Amino acid sequence: MARINSHYLKLQAGYLFPEIGRRVAAFTKEAPGARLIRLGIGDVTLPLPPAIVDAFHEGVRQMADPSTFKGYGPEQGYAFLRDLVASNDYGSRRVNVSPDEVFISDGSKCDCGNIQEIFDPASRMAVADPVYPVYVDTNVMAGRTGGADSRGRYPGIVYMPCTERNGFLPEPPDEPVDAVYLCFPNNPTGAVASREHLHSWVRWARENDAIILFDAAYEAFIRDPGLPRTIFEIEGAREVAIEFRSFSKTAGFTGTRCAFTVVPKELQGKDAGGKPVSLHSLWSRRQTTKFNGVSYPVQAAAAAVYSEAGRAQVKGLVDYYMENARIIREGLGGAGYRVHGGVHAPYLWVETPGKAGSWDFFDRLLRDAHVVATPGAGFGPSGEGFFRLSAFGKREDVIEAVERIRTRLSSS
Amino acid sequence: MARINSHYLKLQAGYLFPEIGRRVAAFTKEAPGARLIRLGIGDVTLPLPPAIVDAFHEGVRQMADPSTFKGYGPEQGYAFLRDLVASNDYGSRRVNVSPDEVFISDGSKCDCGNIQEIFDPASRMAVADPVYPVYVDTNVMAGRTGGADSRGRYPGIVYMPCTERNGFLPEPPDEPVDAVYLCFPNNPTGAVASREHLHSWVRWARENDAIILFDAAYEAFIRDPGLPRTIFEIEGAREVAIEFRSFSKTAGFTGTRCAFTVVPKELQGKDAGGKPVSLHSLWSRRQTTKFNGVSYPVQAAAAAVYSEAGRAQVKGLVDYYMENARIIREGLGGAGYRVHGGVHAPYLWVETPGKAGSWDFFDRLLRDAHVVATPGAGFGPSGEGFFRLSAFGKREDVIEAVERIRTRLSSS
Repeated sequence: MARINSHYLKLQAGYLFPEIGRRVAAFTKEAPGARLIRLGIGDVTLPLPPAIVDAFHEGVRQMADPSTFKGYGPEQGYAFLRDLVASNDYGSRRVNVSPDEVFISDGSKCDCGNIQEIFDPASRMAVADPVYPVYVDTNVMAGRTGGADSRGRYPGIVYMPCTERNGFLPEPPDEPVDAVYLCFPNNPTGAVASREHLHSWVRWARENDAIILFDAAYEAFIRDPGLPRTIFEIEGAREVAIEFRSFSKTAGFTGTRCAFTVVPKELQGKDAGGKPVSLHSLWSRRQTTKFNGVSYPVQAAAAAVYSEAGRAQVKGLVDYYMENARIIREGLGGAGYRVHGGVHAPYLWVETPGKAGSWDFFDRLLRDAHVVATPGAGFGPSGEGFFRLSAFGKREDVIEAVERIRTRLSSS
Repeated sequence: MARINSHYLKLQAGYLFPEIGRRVAAFTKEAPGARLIRLGIGDVTLPLPPAIVDAFHEGVRQMADPSTFKGYGPEQGYAFLRDLVASNDYGSRRVNVSPDEVFISDGSKCDCGNIQEIFDPASRMAVADPVYPVYVDTNVMAGRTGGADSRGRYPGIVYMPCTERNGFLPEPPDEPVDAVYLCFPNNPTGAVASREHLHSWVRWARENDAIILFDAAYEAFIRDPGLPRTIFEIEGAREVAIEFRSFSKTAGFTGTRCAFTVVPKELQGKDAGGKPVSLHSLWSRRQTTKFNGVSYPVQAAAAAVYSEAGRAQVKGLVDYYMENARIIREGLGGAGYRVHGGVHAPYLWVETPGKAGSWDFFDRLLRDAHVVATPGAGFGPSGEGFFRLSAFGKREDVIEAVERIRTRLSSS
């Protein structure tokens, strides 16, 4: 029999979202009449805005016409979109990113999951706790860890606890690592990093020869113009950071699929002999060998995000979700809950009343308020005693969910 | 400095298509007036057919409407498309494949490249020579090989030469392997496998505890209804094979991006302790962790391939390209070239006149006929002395290319 990748067997069977699905299904069977409000998974609910829809249709029309039909596109994405990203997401903030440092992809989940491939199989990775599970699981699958311990932590990975004590901001590991995953605005805690905080990370990375894998999928939700929107606003970051961005949450692309990753040309790792190697060339090789580019009409749609109308419409989506966040934050805060996040991020990280266990409180929320949240413990041991609410719901659902939680559950 | 995956450095710098690009660019600079005809890369040229375009637009319209908008879809693909694949591609041929064995993806290149992840890092893979480079390169990147030898072969991979002597049909390796990549109709040789040939492979795989990774991306080009269109037509294949299929070449999706992979539930590998493990569950875990599904409008477009109009229109595309193949085959054959393939495949595998080197003849074709082919040696040492022509060009280009080759080059 063919030998399988046994590292996969180390993954925990009860993965967060399937386990939520299981409990929700069981409850629905028990109480078939209950109208559930789902504020668990961070999935958008508003449709694609008109400027993007128009460009999407135009892209499809071009595929129907022999004179404009597109076959294989560049694996790294079309120049028209890479140019727009470089000039709008970076150039407009006086950040130097060239179009050929931008790699268009079909999703940040893929990019965050695949990036570890270009690092040594024996390299050591650091992650926050709580954390987006994809960073961890893809390193487990690649064989960089042992089996999970009783708290669900994998030996081989370095965990950086994020708690109220440190304002949910990870502190640099005190052992050597090759790379660290950072996510700001954070999923799941909703924490945002100040310029000083990112400065300290860039300094640490430079001093410790480490790479920062910076997940900025939620940057559009930052409301304070003084906060950094990209790691590359920080001096010296081009030598130590890779950044992941997405159209998913900003422009409503979770079902349309488009994202991008920026790998600066200065960025280097070292080979087995200690010789410097460009990470840009490795990622380029990875993408050209294992990926065939994003659907042309999808890239045409993504480009419309940068048009005048597209920009205004996308801002409308973000404002809508951030108003949801305010409603949840103030509603639950007023009812005595301790609420974190939700100011520069579409996620609210809420303490369970009376330090109840995450899964216990998940069950109570489901049973008493018919609201689906995400138990904080699902993101790591430091998430115990918290639950995450997403601001991506429909307005009326968000208002009703808050009302139900206020009236049907006790906050102490 | 972070340690990189040094296996990437074993990859040969002069990868086939970039090297072709380099030579074409140099020639264009020398002879800027030359009208090049590109029959190198296997990229389609006809636009998406109307039934598919209509469904694509309808998918986009649904994304614009709050009542039909789709966020994250299932990572494995929407049930509507998985059902259509199972019933049309398999059920209609009395082949038993259930919808949940079908994994919709954004391309066969990705699937063929990613599949090796679920096998042991130390597992041994067999490939044909000549071969589609993705099978080899992705295993090199995963660390299953040493550095390339002087012929471009990687120790650790088992090569199965395909020559005129064996009718370009690979023979089972005489050493133990975990998995073998087979591709029929073949890229690059255009060879097709008879039922008996596939029977012998399935028998071999069952007797030798190996997995067949069956790339059937070109199955729609098979003209003889008696030939097998899927490995699963062969008795016993469900216990030993994974099949890759694509909408790229049949429905013109190279720029639209949709494909699928079938992993039967019976299929098993073994873990480090020798215990059987379902490959279906491993692939499912891989896809749900590292992939977020195909764009919804693209899946809606792909579903239209199975409508009555879609089916007829796709058949029209295939017929068009196969008429191109006939023109090339008969045209070059009549001019004294020895031409293989092109009967049940969109590729023609042509012997270079006078056993000229592949790259030498590539240069002659470019210089004297302004035709871009693919040098056979680029697919492996057994491709030396051959060149590949693709039938995916526009009719007038194909006719002119044949005419130029007949009149401007000597075939002996």
